[in-house]
Amino acid sequence: MSKPLMLDPDRLFPAEERTRSIARALYGEVADLPIISPHGHTDARWFATDANWSNATELLLAPDHYIYRMLYSQGIALDDLRVPSKAGVPATDPRAAWRIFADNYFLFRGTPSRLWLDHVFADVFGFDVALDGSTADLYYDRINEALATDAYRPRALFDRFRLEFLATTEGPQDDLSHHHAIQDSGWQGRVVTTYRPDAVIDVEHEQFIGAMQVFADLTGEDVYSWNGYLAAHRKRRADFRAAGATATDHGHPTARTANLTPGEAEALFRRVTGGDWTPADAELFRAQMLTEMAAMSVEDGMVMQIHPGSFRNHNQGLFGSHGRDKGADIPMRTDYVAALKPLLDRFGTSRDLSIILFTLDETTYARELAPLAGHYPCLKLGPAWWFHDSPEGMRRFRENTTETAGFYNTVGFNDDTRAFLSIPARHDVARRVDAAFLARLVAEGRLLDWEAVELIDELTSGLVRRAYRL
Amino acid sequence: MSKPLMLDPDRLFPAEERTRSIARALYGEVADLPIISPHGHTDARWFATDANWSNATELLLAPDHYIYRMLYSQGIALDDLRVPSKAGVPATDPRAAWRIFADNYFLFRGTPSRLWLDHVFADVFGFDVALDGSTADLYYDRINEALATDAYRPRALFDRFRLEFLATTEGPQDDLSHHHAIQDSGWQGRVVTTYRPDAVIDVEHEQFIGAMQVFADLTGEDVYSWNGYLAAHRKRRADFRAAGATATDHGHPTARTANLTPGEAEALFRRVTGGDWTPADAELFRAQMLTEMAAMSVEDGMVMQIHPGSFRNHNQGLFGSHGRDKGADIPMRTDYVAALKPLLDRFGTSRDLSIILFTLDETTYARELAPLAGHYPCLKLGPAWWFHDSPEGMRRFRENTTETAGFYNTVGFNDDTRAFLSIPARHDVARRVDAAFLARLVAEGRLLDWEAVELIDELTSGLVRRAYRL
Amino acid sequence: MSKPLMLDPDRLFPAEERTRSIARALYGEVADLPIISPHGHTDARWFATDANWSNATELLLAPDHYIYRMLYSQGIALDDLRVPSKAGVPATDPRAAWRIFADNYFLFRGTPSRLWLDHVFADVFGFDVALDGSTADLYYDRINEALATDAYRPRALFDRFRLEFLATTEGPQDDLSHHHAIQDSGWQGRVVTTYRPDAVIDVEHEQFIGAMQVFADLTGEDVYSWNGYLAAHRKRRADFRAAGATATDHGHPTARTANLTPGEAEALFRRVTGGDWTPADAELFRAQMLTEMAAMSVEDGMVMQIHPGSFRNHNQGLFGSHGRDKGADIPMRTDYVAALKPLLDRFGTSRDLSIILFTLDETTYARELAPLAGHYPCLKLGPAWWFHDSPEGMRRFRENTTETAGFYNTVGFNDDTRAFLSIPARHDVARRVDAAFLARLVAEGRLLDWEAVELIDELTSGLVRRAYRL
Repeated sequence: MSKPLMLDPDRLFPAEERTRSIARALYGEVADLPIISPHGHTDARWFATDANWSNATELLLAPDHYIYRMLYSQGIALDDLRVPSKAGVPATDPRAAWRIFADNYFLFRGTPSRLWLDHVFADVFGFDVALDGSTADLYYDRINEALATDAYRPRALFDRFRLEFLATTEGPQDDLSHHHAIQDSGWQGRVVTTYRPDAVIDVEHEQFIGAMQVFADLTGEDVYSWNGYLAAHRKRRADFRAAGATATDHGHPTARTANLTPGEAEALFRRVTGGDWTPADAELFRAQMLTEMAAMSVEDGMVMQIHPGSFRNHNQGLFGSHGRDKGADIPMRTDYVAALKPLLDRFGTSRDLSIILFTLDETTYARELAPLAGHYPCLKLGPAWWFHDSPEGMRRFRENTTETAGFYNTVGFNDDTRAFLSIPARHDVARRVDAAFLARLVAEGRLLDWEAVELIDELTSGLVRRAYRL
Repeated sequence: MSKPLMLDPDRLFPAEERTRSIARALYGEVADLPIISPHGHTDARWFATDANWSNATELLLAPDHYIYRMLYSQGIALDDLRVPSKAGVPATDPRAAWRIFADNYFLFRGTPSRLWLDHVFADVFGFDVALDGSTADLYYDRINEALATDAYRPRALFDRFRLEFLATTEGPQDDLSHHHAIQDSGWQGRVVTTYRPDAVIDVEHEQFIGAMQVFADLTGEDVYSWNGYLAAHRKRRADFRAAGATATDHGHPTARTANLTPGEAEALFRRVTGGDWTPADAELFRAQMLTEMAAMSVEDGMVMQIHPGSFRNHNQGLFGSHGRDKGADIPMRTDYVAALKPLLDRFGTSRDLSIILFTLDETTYARELAPLAGHYPCLKLGPAWWFHDSPEGMRRFRENTTETAGFYNTVGFNDDTRAFLSIPARHDVARRVDAAFLARLVAEGRLLDWEAVELIDELTSGLVRRAYRL
Repeated sequence: MSKPLMLDPDRLFPAEERTRSIARALYGEVADLPIISPHGHTDARWFATDANWSNATELLLAPDHYIYRMLYSQGIALDDLRVPSKAGVPATDPRAAWRIFADNYFLFRGTPSRLWLDHVFADVFGFDVALDGSTADLYYDRINEALATDAYRPRALFDRFRLEFLATTEGPQDDLSHHHAIQDSGWQGRVVTTYRPDAVIDVEHEQFIGAMQVFADLTGEDVYSWNGYLAAHRKRRADFRAAGATATDHGHPTARTANLTPGEAEALFRRVTGGDWTPADAELFRAQMLTEMAAMSVEDGMVMQIHPGSFRNHNQGLFGSHGRDKGADIPMRTDYVAALKPLLDRFGTSRDLSIILFTLDETTYARELAPLAGHYPCLKLGPAWWFHDSPEGMRRFRENTTETAGFYNTVGFNDDTRAFLSIPARHDVARRVDAAFLARLVAEGRLLDWEAVELIDELTSGLVRRAYRL
């Protein structure tokens, strides 16, 4: 007995009727606006080759750690979901993996993944029955049929999704060939890169040594000398800008910054690249490099994004068998007030610098981030991120930041996803939650209706364009 | 002029009518289900002897630190409430103590204690006037009359409350005689113990030396040698399992775990039992013992409960005069991400281990606990605990954990109480708050009505049975 | 095209109609009660001289860091707003500054500043068009005209605002001449001082050396000896009490207290006044002085207010050019549990001591502050403070503290402002938010209607009188 699938047109709006009708009207103002996605992790190759995706499991399940982390937490083996390990792609039949997912789809009740997936199923694939064990094969077959058609190739979906701008993320060790292929292809879709140098900055990163070698090869610089290393960053930043990048991204464990003298910085660089370093050295080098990146942003105008606070690869056994990015990253308590001060002491009053701060530690919203962004001209607040990119998480973000930082020190929405098909769903959730928040302010006499109309447009479209310098 | 007492049948449901009617219907599904209480602190003796309780003050006021802490905070002396001190039970007339409580009952406005007490007064004792100075004697007399009858003896109330399962908590130094008496009595009520070894693990516990001696006596093991000590734990765990226990409980100051080599562990054990230890040694020994307890749980299948984060006996003067558990325990900031890693590095992917995590630091719900439980198969989230076991606290728990961990990585409700008469009231509050939360999800189009019906049953009944292996 | 300005009579009440009507009725009980303002930063000189204010910019914009911090965060220079720097008052035309403010008034959407300002504009000045670029001159001219009249002089407004009690804040280096002038003037308005000794306690304060000199001069004590220093505090506390003070105030970076022996304290005092101290010495001295101040409060009955957790003058460049209190103070994570223990170990059970705790770290509400205040007789909770003195911030305060500390361990509202004209607006917001919170409890069956009526009166009037010993 399958159940119907139907997206409630009023989903995520408050139940109270007056507020709901305000929210509905505000959402109506922006529901059909193009999508601007300034931060995400889709694969540039998709848009370069425009090849069809293979099947539902390969596209929707096996690469999405939001989904398989929940299944894993309930005792389901990653091999049974066809999630690749260091040994390669498991031999599991993708249809069998899909059936396990379908049987356990109830686990996602109350999560944003459920909202996103139902949106994808109903809106992208046209299903009108819900996913469960009884419909697993129906879903699997029909999705695969669709994926084989031209209408479901990456560029066609990009257009169908009304994507006006899509940023991917690459490291200095990436040759940007897919981005060059997109640029050379004549296709009009705007897919650009973002400079994310973690692998050549974080000496604790397992790819550091290899990434440095490629960094040297691609730049022709002596990246093992401090000046050569900085010059290599400058070169690659220029390459990235040529490939459309307007921003850099920094995913450090903490938000710590440093302001060493050139001599101290060089000595530290020698230690960490010499291999004889302590964890404190590694941390200090990351800290110093945030400040160096800020210095380069003052020069070249790239917007800095700082995404700190994740304890990466927490599950030691799983990291050994499957490697990084397998749903085992856990947020940590994160300090910003002391951490950012060295960078701000140097560049805090610069008019040319723009830094977007993210957090996984929601306690910093009202306590640190809103007061910082509500004061420093160079600081803006990124949206609710990762685990908090959800209806309750977004509501908390607005409730905790708006009163101190206002709306105009925020930067609109980031989908931050590698799940391309879910991008419209995610932006739709953000627009609805923002409409609901604004509607409450209007209903409670804290904002006028015409102001809310202006604001929903800013939150959807205006702020992101200005913040990312598009 | 006494005021009427009446329990609002719609209490704790949202005011908005559509949501309220959904909540009412969901609550109706589970309102009459039996109570499963897998974690609490009632006295096994009550059920072993089935003796009548003496009077209202002895039963409801003097032993309940939720109540007298509030009165004490407003300047009322514990002696005047007949709260026992190290000098014994004060000479205060219990009726006089009750009158003070009644005169100050207004202090509890807005607290869960008020909800629980009114429920007990109205539902267990049948009062229809509110407690205040004018009704103090009426209450005192009528409660005492009731307590003298057979209908108010512990086993009769156990049955009347539809208690299907009740866990108490005992230490390794407890001979479990009351539990054995219950088992031998032929009474059908299921009252079981829980293994809580803090007093023989925490060398900073004021009862450590005495508890170790009893631990030795009861097990016949050389508990002052590392191997004998571990063997004694194994013996007592077996004793507890024989008395129905399915779980252990660990109330450490922090969640820290360690993963020492056997040699290091033995050396540390020698230090802490030798009396020549630092606070850091004591902390490390507790940390290592959590991991040892996990190892034994892998062997014997007992579910671990970790309840960290309380600064015990914060009020030095009161601890001196009255001893522990006098309402002076204060929550502290608590870390889980780094703290649990050593244990998880060793057992995190074990299929046989189940750990239920509690917290007094709500900032960890969304930041640490939900991400951990939403990933590791061995981790589940205990319900909102102690100071947070309240309508707002429970709501925050659901709002902050569900989106990342879902509902199925939680374990239902714990009443965690020594106030036996309040158990139905506490479970009723939990069922109402869960119904209200689910109703909001339904009203906002985030969950379907039939899913909410399944979930309210899981939250009340299904999850707790599975999590505690009942 | 100017827009109308109209204060919604139901602003800040919940949208749901039944709850709203309860809130409206509760607010009606207290809307017209006199204002008791026990903690703030208005200038006693205003009430001493009763001189007219000069113009809108000097009164409302240039001194208010709530306002210019937001404008600064969006890239507007403080000079353009006529905010004084170390070089003096900028030459900017005050009308030009006002126009910039008006043009950017939209930035305040969603902030409490907007609510307060609109209230001032509509209620104090009678505007019925909103402030924006098109009405900037109208506003500027009409405000200035009003300010030139007798009806807008400080004492007239004091009466019009129904201010029953207004506390200012002065340091030991203040001669209290304005307060003496007020006392001698025969005017009936009750404007009193508060003893805030930070500048002579915090050796890291940039005014420490100068303040100590004045402290010596005003007291005739040898303030560079430990006993003379303590005696000087006692003298000045007596002076302040004679000028009406009932409270002291302590704005340290942390809540840390210490309990040194007299010999240790004296040695520490010698180090910090000798100029050869470390930051740790400075911190320990502040800690010890909180305990010394508590000792004096036990003697003289002054209520202590502890306002910790602000990283002062975070923006190094701005501090250099403009000095302190320029909107660059950023909250920090704050501990209370360990920090307050030394003081509480010494005075925690004293019946004569009363300490009001404030925080900028909302995570401590439910975790630390409510449990502490819900236990210790000497501790009470100050209201939501500074960045959290806002509708959402006040709601979080009530939701997070009430269940553990109740209402009666709180102390009513503080406006904490130097913006005199906004005092009625701020108290009005607090009354509305409290009414809304109580209304929800009533609507959800958690409180009876007559209890809510009692409580709204306590929250507005009763608690503050008792807490501040008025």
